[in-house]
Amino acid sequence: MATSEEGLIELCHGNGGWLMHELIEDIIRPALANPMLDTQLDAAKLPALEGLPVITTDGFTVQPLEFPGGDIGSLAVHGTINDLAVSGAVPLYLTLNLFIEEGFEISRLARLIKSLGQAADSTGVVVVAGDTKVLPRGQCGGIYLATTGIGTLAPGTNLGMGFVQPGDKVLVSGPIGDHGTAVMLAREQFGLSGTLLSDSASVLPLTLALQGLDGIRFMRDPTRGGLATVAYELCRATGLGINLWQEAIPVSDQVRGVCDLLGYDPYYLACEGRVMAIVSMSDAPSALKRWQALPAGSHAAIVGEIQSNHSRVVLTTDYGGERILEELEDDPLPRIC
Amino acid sequence: MATSEEGLIELCHGNGGWLMHELIEDIIRPALANPMLDTQLDAAKLPALEGLPVITTDGFTVQPLEFPGGDIGSLAVHGTINDLAVSGAVPLYLTLNLFIEEGFEISRLARLIKSLGQAADSTGVVVVAGDTKVLPRGQCGGIYLATTGIGTLAPGTNLGMGFVQPGDKVLVSGPIGDHGTAVMLAREQFGLSGTLLSDSASVLPLTLALQGLDGIRFMRDPTRGGLATVAYELCRATGLGINLWQEAIPVSDQVRGVCDLLGYDPYYLACEGRVMAIVSMSDAPSALKRWQALPAGSHAAIVGEIQSNHSRVVLTTDYGGERILEELEDDPLPRIC
Repeated sequence: MATSEEGLIELCHGNGGWLMHELIEDIIRPALANPMLDTQLDAAKLPALEGLPVITTDGFTVQPLEFPGGDIGSLAVHGTINDLAVSGAVPLYLTLNLFIEEGFEISRLARLIKSLGQAADSTGVVVVAGDTKVLPRGQCGGIYLATTGIGTLAPGTNLGMGFVQPGDKVLVSGPIGDHGTAVMLAREQFGLSGTLLSDSASVLPLTLALQGLDGIRFMRDPTRGGLATVAYELCRATGLGINLWQEAIPVSDQVRGVCDLLGYDPYYLACEGRVMAIVSMSDAPSALKRWQALPAGSHAAIVGEIQSNHSRVVLTTDYGGERILEELEDDPLPRIC
Repeated sequence: MATSEEGLIELCHGNGGWLMHELIEDIIRPALANPMLDTQLDAAKLPALEGLPVITTDGFTVQPLEFPGGDIGSLAVHGTINDLAVSGAVPLYLTLNLFIEEGFEISRLARLIKSLGQAADSTGVVVVAGDTKVLPRGQCGGIYLATTGIGTLAPGTNLGMGFVQPGDKVLVSGPIGDHGTAVMLAREQFGLSGTLLSDSASVLPLTLALQGLDGIRFMRDPTRGGLATVAYELCRATGLGINLWQEAIPVSDQVRGVCDLLGYDPYYLACEGRVMAIVSMSDAPSALKRWQALPAGSHAAIVGEIQSNHSRVVLTTDYGGERILEELEDDPLPRIC
């Protein structure tokens, strides 16, 4: 038995023997090719880091594994480097854990890892270490990934919820909910389909664009639970409230249409390539300008404001009314990342 | 519905809403308590690293989740820091990914995370970032972990398979196969039981003990596939052969008994707290002495030698014969880590 792209993953591909070796050398290593990935070593030695290290980790269990605009491979890269980017860091290295189900098509694995490698390449990060486990049929939904990212903080960067003040503005870098909606449509469980692409992408150009702007308080990529959930975390951490202006929040027609049909709120749907930033009142216009000058920020908008007279997330509706966005208990769209 | 230790994990515990927040704050955070784990941040900011960074990552899918001498929580810590330690590094930080199956007992999760936290504490590493995903019932065997470890290389450390030379000695720090055998006995699938404990432990005291010894070429913790598999990786990388001396290899009576009964070779069984080291002929005796002076190394032994006249792993048996240890294709004991 040899590992070939036509075959299926078997339990023995995860047991440390030569079949695992072959899988790693034939399928995984070429897709992640870089001089720092030494599959003979238990641990990767990295050059000295210039700047303070920043580290983050994420698990990925999205269903379906491939969706319009991305797949679990590219999503894992984007999701991880975005967590570094919104912390004010420049991502440098990734590690990769694979949990693969017995019976998974090797050709599909190769495709997903290739996509992961391309996403890493195009954002200038390298995969330096990895681990593969194979689970018995029925004990793993195809493939799960875990990626850990390491970067370094740009000098002088100091972002955090603790810096947020009443009167600060809320910015988003583009239309919200595209990823959640695209993945949901790809499941075809509601009999809906569309041409919407996930927004899965690196947000590094967006976060770098705001570098050096004094009034940047905090950035976050609104993934699981969407914009409203990040807003709630902010309220909880600061004791402040957030007003969001429905009219100002960019939502694509397709996302709006799906939400209207199914009764979803786009504010709770995941993005995987957007940034929410809290910026001082005085610097908000120049932050917006910097974003709008980028292709990824052409639909950026100032969508709300930090309030001291309440501690909820309140939506000012298009009709001028106010509606409290309740904190999410259970996501209507599980497994979107 | 509130998160309590009596309850079961539900899908909503992984969806980014307040139930996930509660799970993290009530169950996970206290067990990993350290000032650097800030659950409000997407990424952890670390102090500047003194020395070159070393990074490794591992997935853990062991069955059963709890076994004599350890559990998946402590095993994840040991497995990850050991990969750093055998690279000549001092482990500093861990990140943690949880993949939990819907219906998993929260009290059990709390117990496993507590064990993980204690193992980290006792080896001086801190968990600085994490991520939790919940999978639908039947799509995850209880719980899978992925841990990434960061450490720094001790100055002057230069280990690697490339340094190995004919005539070098092979050392092991203690009896082999305890972990694999203990986990197998815990499954009770063969109707066997015993008092054997897994050797799951940090090997850092062992690797630090060899620091500064010129003749250290390479170290590895023989986990999946055991001593024979590490030996084969070494042969493949160097083109050299390895002779192992059956008589010299420490194997506990219980492991030997189980192997005799079931027809296993202990050389393929996993350890999770042992080191295999390749040391120059002249420094091998002092390396052995350093190990034997430690509680974890009291059964350390010189068990073989690097050869240039073949490129296989050859066992000199107790009866003076020679037997090629074939390279493992499929592990008789899957999911031991």
